[in-house]
Order: sequence, then structure tokens, then C-alpha cells
Amino acid sequence: MNLLLLDPSDFLTESQVRVSGPRALHLINVLRIGMGSSLRVGRLNGPIGRAVVTEIKADTIQLECFWEQTPAPPSVDLLLAMPRPKAMKRLWPQLGALGVRQIAITNAERVAPFYFASHVLAPSFYVPRLIEGLQQAQDTHLPEVRIEKRLKVFLEDHLEAWAPGSVRLFADPPAESSLTDVLPRGSERVVVAIGPEEGWSPYERDLLAHHAFRAFTLGRRTLRSDTACVAVLTLVRAQMNPTRSFD
Amino acid sequence: MNLLLLDPSDFLTESQVRVSGPRALHLINVLRIGMGSSLRVGRLNGPIGRAVVTEIKADTIQLECFWEQTPAPPSVDLLLAMPRPKAMKRLWPQLGALGVRQIAITNAERVAPFYFASHVLAPSFYVPRLIEGLQQAQDTHLPEVRIEKRLKVFLEDHLEAWAPGSVRLFADPPAESSLTDVLPRGSERVVVAIGPEEGWSPYERDLLAHHAFRAFTLGRRTLRSDTACVAVLTLVRAQMNPTRSFD
Repeated sequence: MNLLLLDPSDFLTESQVRVSGPRALHLINVLRIGMGSSLRVGRLNGPIGRAVVTEIKADTIQLECFWEQTPAPPSVDLLLAMPRPKAMKRLWPQLGALGVRQIAITNAERVAPFYFASHVLAPSFYVPRLIEGLQQAQDTHLPEVRIEKRLKVFLEDHLEAWAPGSVRLFADPPAESSLTDVLPRGSERVVVAIGPEEGWSPYERDLLAHHAFRAFTLGRRTLRSDTACVAVLTLVRAQMNPTRSFD
Repeated sequence: MNLLLLDPSDFLTESQVRVSGPRALHLINVLRIGMGSSLRVGRLNGPIGRAVVTEIKADTIQLECFWEQTPAPPSVDLLLAMPRPKAMKRLWPQLGALGVRQIAITNAERVAPFYFASHVLAPSFYVPRLIEGLQQAQDTHLPEVRIEKRLKVFLEDHLEAWAPGSVRLFADPPAESSLTDVLPRGSERVVVAIGPEEGWSPYERDLLAHHAFRAFTLGRRTLRSDTACVAVLTLVRAQMNPTRSFD
């Protein structure tokens, strides 16, 4: 944990925070903080800063926080065809760490419908894992997640409000263009759609193209969904900000 | 499994192959192949092609193979400070899928020495996982793995023979340069070194620099070892081959 992420219920005042329960015990017993220890903290969807430990009692810690800047929110949205639950489970903390503003998980012809019954799509499952990723990467912006079982309905009725004015891209192994062809350097907002491991169906390709998504390929290799997500998000970030991709 | 990878002991002749045991049962019971079915195959460190099923008996399958081209071997070598065993376990199939020619796993000051006692460094553990990645990505080149407990000895005595003439890079969050600054486009061979999550020590930074490794940063975010490996290998590939990074 490179940063302790605090949520509104932890705050006594703007700068005073009380952490209790398992998080406090982890800080005391594993990270061995003591009176006067200093640690990196962040306020959920707010600034990052440093905190000094001012009180320790059984399983409660009180901190005095000194806020610095608020990290810029991520500029990439992810439209993801639901992967196998095992891959989705692995992906949550990595999406938190890589920095994604919004995540929409959708159905696709080549997605088994029972994947949507998985517990990995419950907020009680994914929020702690996204937070784990944010704490790893020292970010505070919790991605907004929506589960959209019907791709067509989402594209027709919600996409425009969800991500207005973004460049729209989708990963498609047989495409001719590379990411650098379809994503102008320095683009400010991007929605990237990643299909199932077996690919988008011809109907879905047409549907995405009809909604102004441009196809790109990474090449011959077929990557596992979670590896593909990390690779695609990395390349999108690099194209948007070549010198400091993971700021 | 997008390709069935065959090893020398499977071959009856140049084109005839007999597969038995769990792999055959997986093909029969899970992938539901039957007489005359056609599947993608590869020969370990050799060509890829198609095979037709010519015989099925209990737990044995016979195939007739039609070889096409041999994929180009990957052009990236990875020098990796041993991550937590849990991260290393997750990483093996991804390294196979991303395409790495050689992997050297080393010690570093901020690596707990007991990590090297982990079963995840046994060939019986990692070879099947690398093969899983190769089968996913339809590649045949099994990365060569060596465990080098002493970074200094490896750099002084073995690096030159291990990766002659390669561009040498290391990921280092506080560095000033970006990957695009230190890796010329179109480079043919690259060694990239990735440190522990807590970073290389000052001594290790000097040692790497002394051996002509140039430092680059990805930016402010600290990524988990396995996510960082996927991100760095993706960016190195993209810089070497911007249009078809994952060929």
C-alpha cells in the first residue's frame, strides 16, 4: 500500500481523520506505524497528501492530514465485453492502478450470459479491489462502473451522455489500422472498447463502427482478456502522453 | 487454447503426431474434437500450422500436420528482479503470451531472499505456464529462463554473452527520460530490466548504468510488478514495431 485512501466517513474535520477496524490493524501490525509516523494519504476522489499519526488506541488511529494537490482524473473510459469471471477478478485492481475514469461492462455474442451472474460484478467485490489498485498507484479517482447487459442499447441510448466528445476506438485483431493510426497524439478523452477473447461478432463490429468507433489491431497474438486490457490501456496512455504515460 | 503446442516427444514422423494423456482428454472432452477435426498446432521452437485428426482412441489422438511458417523469435529479453511469488505466478503465462526471448530472474536489495525458495521458480511449475501463454498467443518460442541470484555477478560475467549487442534499458520511476527517449525506434534487440516494486537501490542504479543500461520512467504511478511487466513489455514492443506491436 503506497497510499492510504480515506473515504468521507473517516473524516472528523477537513484535516482530522479517524481510521478503525481492519485498516487500522493493518497499519499498526503490518506496516508498524507508531505515534508521529508519517504516511501518504488520499481523499476518495480528492487530493493526496501526507498524514501524521496523532493517536493510537486498540484498533483506532487518528491522523492529522496535510493536503497537497488533487491528481488529474484519468482521461480514458473502458467499454469491456465481460471476460471470464476469473480474468475479471484479476483485472479490477489493475484497472484501478492503470487509471480509468469510467468502466462499462457489456454483453457480446461471444460472452457466456452466465458470466453476469458472477459475484465479481457486485460492488462489494469490485470496489475494494479498485481501491487496492488506487492505493498501489497513489491515485484517488475511483472509476465509475456500470453493468450494461445490452451493448446495442448502451451504444444507442447512453454512450453519448456517458462519454461526450471522446475519440472512440475498438480493439479488433483482424483490423488493418494500428492504434497510432486511429488515435491522434495528444487526444484528451478516449473511449476504448475491448471485446471477448474470441472477438467481436460481425454484427457487433458494424454496430461499433456505426457509432463512430474505429478499429485497431495490436498484431497477430491473441492475448488473454486481462493481459489485453493492460496492454491496450498502456498503449492508449502512451499515445495520449508519450513522455509520462502513467502520470 | 488457440494453438496446440507439440513437443519433440509427440512426433512419430515430421508430420505425424500422437498426443496422449490429459492433453488428449482435454481435446476430446472439452474442445470436442472428432475424426477429421482441424486445429492450429505448433512445434516447440518451430513452425506453426494446421493439423487434422486422423485417429482417436480412449486417451490418444493422432494428427497429421501441415506446417506453415515459423514465427520470428521475440526480440526482447527481460531482466526481472524477483517479484513476490504470487505476482510471479500470475506473470508466467503473460510472459509467454507477450513474447519474450529470454528471462533472467535476479536478486535485488529490496527483494526478500526467501522468494527464491518458492516453487514458482521450478521449471516444473513455470514451463507449463509459459506454454499456456504460447498456446494463447499462437507462438512456439519457449523463453529461456535462468535464475541469477546475484545481479552483480550476472551483469559482470554473463550479460554480454546472454544478450550481445542489445539496447539496454531499465525502468526506474524517478528517472527523467521516457521510454521513447532511450529506445530508438526500430531497435532490433532490447534487454529491459524491471526492478522490485520498492525500486532499485542507489547502488543497483549505478551498477546498471555502469553496464550501459539507460533509465526510463513511465510516470508517477507505481504499478504492481506483474502489471508493470505487461505495461513495460507492451511499450517496448510498440516502440520497436509501432504498427504491429504484437506480431
